[in-house]
Amino acid sequence: MAPKIISMRNLKFLLYEVFDIETLTQYPYYKAHNKKMFDLVLDAAQKIGTKLLYPVFEEMDRQVPRLENGAVKVHPQVATILQEFGEGGWISARFPEEFDGDQMPLLITSACWLIFCGANYSAAAFPALCAGAARLITSFGNQRLIDTYVAKMLSGQWQGTMALTEPQAGSSLTDITTTAVPADDGTYRVKGRKVFISAGDHDATENVIHLMLAKIEGAPVGIKGVSLFVVPKKRIAADDELVANDIVVSQIFHKLGYRGCPITELSMGEKDDCHGYLVGEPHRGIMYMFQMMNEERIGVGTAAAAIASAAYYAALAYTRERPQGRRLSEKDPAVPQIPIIEHADVKRMLLFQRSVVEGSFALLLQCALYEGLITVTKDETEKEKYRLLLDLLTPVAKTYPAEMGIQATSQAIQCFGGYGYCEDFPVEQLFRDMRIHAIHEGTTGIQGMDLLGRKLVMHEGRAGWLFIEELQGTIAAAGAYPELLSLAKRLDAAQQKLQDVTLHLFGLAGEKGPEVFLADATLFLELFGTVAIAWQWLLQSVKAQAALASGPSAAETNFYQGKLYTGRYFFSYELPKIEGLAIRLLETNPLTMGMETAFFND
Amino acid sequence: MAPKIISMRNLKFLLYEVFDIETLTQYPYYKAHNKKMFDLVLDAAQKIGTKLLYPVFEEMDRQVPRLENGAVKVHPQVATILQEFGEGGWISARFPEEFDGDQMPLLITSACWLIFCGANYSAAAFPALCAGAARLITSFGNQRLIDTYVAKMLSGQWQGTMALTEPQAGSSLTDITTTAVPADDGTYRVKGRKVFISAGDHDATENVIHLMLAKIEGAPVGIKGVSLFVVPKKRIAADDELVANDIVVSQIFHKLGYRGCPITELSMGEKDDCHGYLVGEPHRGIMYMFQMMNEERIGVGTAAAAIASAAYYAALAYTRERPQGRRLSEKDPAVPQIPIIEHADVKRMLLFQRSVVEGSFALLLQCALYEGLITVTKDETEKEKYRLLLDLLTPVAKTYPAEMGIQATSQAIQCFGGYGYCEDFPVEQLFRDMRIHAIHEGTTGIQGMDLLGRKLVMHEGRAGWLFIEELQGTIAAAGAYPELLSLAKRLDAAQQKLQDVTLHLFGLAGEKGPEVFLADATLFLELFGTVAIAWQWLLQSVKAQAALASGPSAAETNFYQGKLYTGRYFFSYELPKIEGLAIRLLETNPLTMGMETAFFND
Repeated sequence: MAPKIISMRNLKFLLYEVFDIETLTQYPYYKAHNKKMFDLVLDAAQKIGTKLLYPVFEEMDRQVPRLENGAVKVHPQVATILQEFGEGGWISARFPEEFDGDQMPLLITSACWLIFCGANYSAAAFPALCAGAARLITSFGNQRLIDTYVAKMLSGQWQGTMALTEPQAGSSLTDITTTAVPADDGTYRVKGRKVFISAGDHDATENVIHLMLAKIEGAPVGIKGVSLFVVPKKRIAADDELVANDIVVSQIFHKLGYRGCPITELSMGEKDDCHGYLVGEPHRGIMYMFQMMNEERIGVGTAAAAIASAAYYAALAYTRERPQGRRLSEKDPAVPQIPIIEHADVKRMLLFQRSVVEGSFALLLQCALYEGLITVTKDETEKEKYRLLLDLLTPVAKTYPAEMGIQATSQAIQCFGGYGYCEDFPVEQLFRDMRIHAIHEGTTGIQGMDLLGRKLVMHEGRAGWLFIEELQGTIAAAGAYPELLSLAKRLDAAQQKLQDVTLHLFGLAGEKGPEVFLADATLFLELFGTVAIAWQWLLQSVKAQAALASGPSAAETNFYQGKLYTGRYFFSYELPKIEGLAIRLLETNPLTMGMETAFFND
Repeated sequence: MAPKIISMRNLKFLLYEVFDIETLTQYPYYKAHNKKMFDLVLDAAQKIGTKLLYPVFEEMDRQVPRLENGAVKVHPQVATILQEFGEGGWISARFPEEFDGDQMPLLITSACWLIFCGANYSAAAFPALCAGAARLITSFGNQRLIDTYVAKMLSGQWQGTMALTEPQAGSSLTDITTTAVPADDGTYRVKGRKVFISAGDHDATENVIHLMLAKIEGAPVGIKGVSLFVVPKKRIAADDELVANDIVVSQIFHKLGYRGCPITELSMGEKDDCHGYLVGEPHRGIMYMFQMMNEERIGVGTAAAAIASAAYYAALAYTRERPQGRRLSEKDPAVPQIPIIEHADVKRMLLFQRSVVEGSFALLLQCALYEGLITVTKDETEKEKYRLLLDLLTPVAKTYPAEMGIQATSQAIQCFGGYGYCEDFPVEQLFRDMRIHAIHEGTTGIQGMDLLGRKLVMHEGRAGWLFIEELQGTIAAAGAYPELLSLAKRLDAAQQKLQDVTLHLFGLAGEKGPEVFLADATLFLELFGTVAIAWQWLLQSVKAQAALASGPSAAETNFYQGKLYTGRYFFSYELPKIEGLAIRLLETNPLTMGMETAFFND
């Protein structure tokens, strides 16, 4: 039997009690859905996780993809996974009905992907990439591209990829050198090299559809010269046959984790016969990508939080069963040992993990709620408000789970002691699988600059003020519960500190320019993320406190008490970390910039 | 060529300029040594690291030990390593002349092991275990045990191990169940099971000598019933032949990292024919182990700091060479990309790693200096003072590098971006190798309780006051340099905060008992460790500032400036973390203890 990797009770608490998903289903776009169906969807997702994905969690890590004769072989289960995700409608769940999708709210699909990624992140990546790549085509591609590719990708027959990175251009996409030369037939001939392309080739699919950035010959230098193309592994020839499209897999990367999914290096156009099909207009590739980036980044945060959840429940189960030591007040060595969960320090490690997991889940679903509201709201001011909040919180919802997830999975190992370091338990793999998330889809450093240098600055800083308003709303709601007053006061002080730091940094920007302004953007992101998660914990605490007042069952009381304790844990142990960050951020000396490269010589 | 894994300039700065090792060589015990010889020793160690250990760093990780027909096969280089460490006198370097040792100060041998462990931790573990096990015998064993085993272990012919842990007894050694029954010949028959025994069996040695904890039949229950034994894999029969001693390797553990060294499960006495030889007196095994624990734990801290150093220099080299992006003020995409070390956020990540590495090195060598002073000082009050300081700082010198090393190696991966996640670069392995150190030789939780519950409490808290005196001495010395006044002030405030927190916790102990007192001992250890490393950074800054005043060469100026910047980094970015920790530690609600186990149910 698969072990517990996620709390369904918690998912439902967030979906129904905290974010009240049913407000969305009142709108025409989501009218086909209701709570009862959502419950069925979640149960079905749980079954997929348990029966399809988890059973090969370890095997896919150990039997890594191989490159043989230019073709990539993956675990045989991948074919089944793609097929079942396609047939079950999991890939197309969020797509509009016109693409045979279910028009499901992101709130629900996010919850499902939390289940899938927690069960087996490497496996879940294959269908997730199909959905992401297809969405680029449906959003920006012409009807012909849509007709040719989308149905096959949503059915899991054809693998989709995002082909952005090149050996010399990772964070700096401006500097890609893959070229696209217009051909007589209106298509393009693509030439170049891409690296780190997830699922870039494999034998569990009959075709791979790359959504690829390239520069059209003669395009403007820099970011304004990058275009987006569909570049299939096999193109459709005149006779409707699939023929090889001159893409060579030059290597696959062996990695720390995320090992079940082949990360490839691709070489296009070695025979000058790699056909590419322009998506949308020339030179707008980066803009298209940026418009999709929110969802991709929230997807990364989702995967990270899911992995942390799997590690937390593994640690929880172990600490309940493992006897070791006695109470400190117990001096008699003849008394039996107690389960280690009874030790305060082990409880602290569990509370830390739970606070990261459930805090991250909440922030991710908060973002999903904003996305739903953007979709349904007719009021343009409202729509703009949610758009700004979603844009603002995206780097946070990506980074907090990714960075804190490293620490959370590390603490899961610690709960196991020496056993956690061994391959007999899943936590060492989860620790390895986790580490990619602070890197891909924009490193933590990039997210920090995005938050401070773009999201908080644009529209005269409106997004920041909207965020403060959201916090104030929750603080006010907490005011109804005497038990939450001290937490509300702490969050209020924290948001004030966040404002002080932000205004101080804006001042630096004016005085000293962008380099000094953004030198510590990563620290700022950490501070912002901690405040955002504290907000989500206060929000959950309000709902838990309200539920407790209605006299729930013993099991439910335990659940709500657990919520309240974890929230208190966060305010006592995690939120205070902003004090140290603020001390540095309020200094004015650009210390790291003063450190000359030569000072690193010895 | 092996890459840089450590700064020899920094080692010499610490040994000669900061801790002035030559004060030790004035004493008779170390009179055979001088700076010139130390330089030769360090150079020789560097050669061993570069030519013997590093070349198999990756291979030993990939070609893991195998259990075949009951015997463990390790990488063939291990035999050469043990032989060269034996013949070169590296295993016996610190042993007294009576054991053919070199009577070298721990300061120098620690520096050498920093080099060895940075080059290849798995490989270095084999000879290190020989030394540790042999030292237990020379310290507590009778002449016969010494004559039989020590020379062979110090020459690298026979592997030594520490066989403490059992499946049901890791942190709680009180609960071991391995038994020793007295036999007619004055030896014992040992029966039981041990797990996680590093180098517990392998084919690169002709014998394995386990220093094993067991309970003599009829011994008192608990900690006072545990004895220490020598239990060889092969015992010496009457005809001086080596014969099998009834120990079976029942499994080897496959692990996250530290993969070159076989971690074994051993089963003793399945045929009732496993002979054990008592070390010292019955029932004093735990006490003997505790007396050796300081050195073992400092050894763990040393290994962790060394691994962090290797990762830091890998990241440093990469960031100097990898072009990516442009200055934020540079808007022209036609301008070539700059090496990423030029970005402030990358410099911050490098400074973080360097501050952890060099701060840890300093604290470890500070401990080694205390050890040297204990060895040479005739004045009993002085000796007691250094003993208390060493005891106090041991859990800190073990834990700070082990815990912060996880973050430092993680940041090294981050500096590489996606490449850091791949096996083509060493940082992913270093990240994996690092993770064991917060677990073995006493987990971080155990170290926290040791620091707060034992070291700070014993002798009416004298160790703590001595520590504060040491800090005050450094703060006073910094007073001579106007450039350091603000750092000195910050350290003074930090040590005051540490005192406040400590006294607050002592108060809790009196009011509410040991459970509440020690509930957050891990946080306290983190706070204490951060203050201790800040102290070491101020100490180094004083020496660097003094050296700069003497008008050194350009290269030396760069080195000292690098020191000063890294020190400032620590005071601005790391030391402020104690504010958040103190907020929690000064609260009085035992939050984690209130979290009932049932609250974790859902």
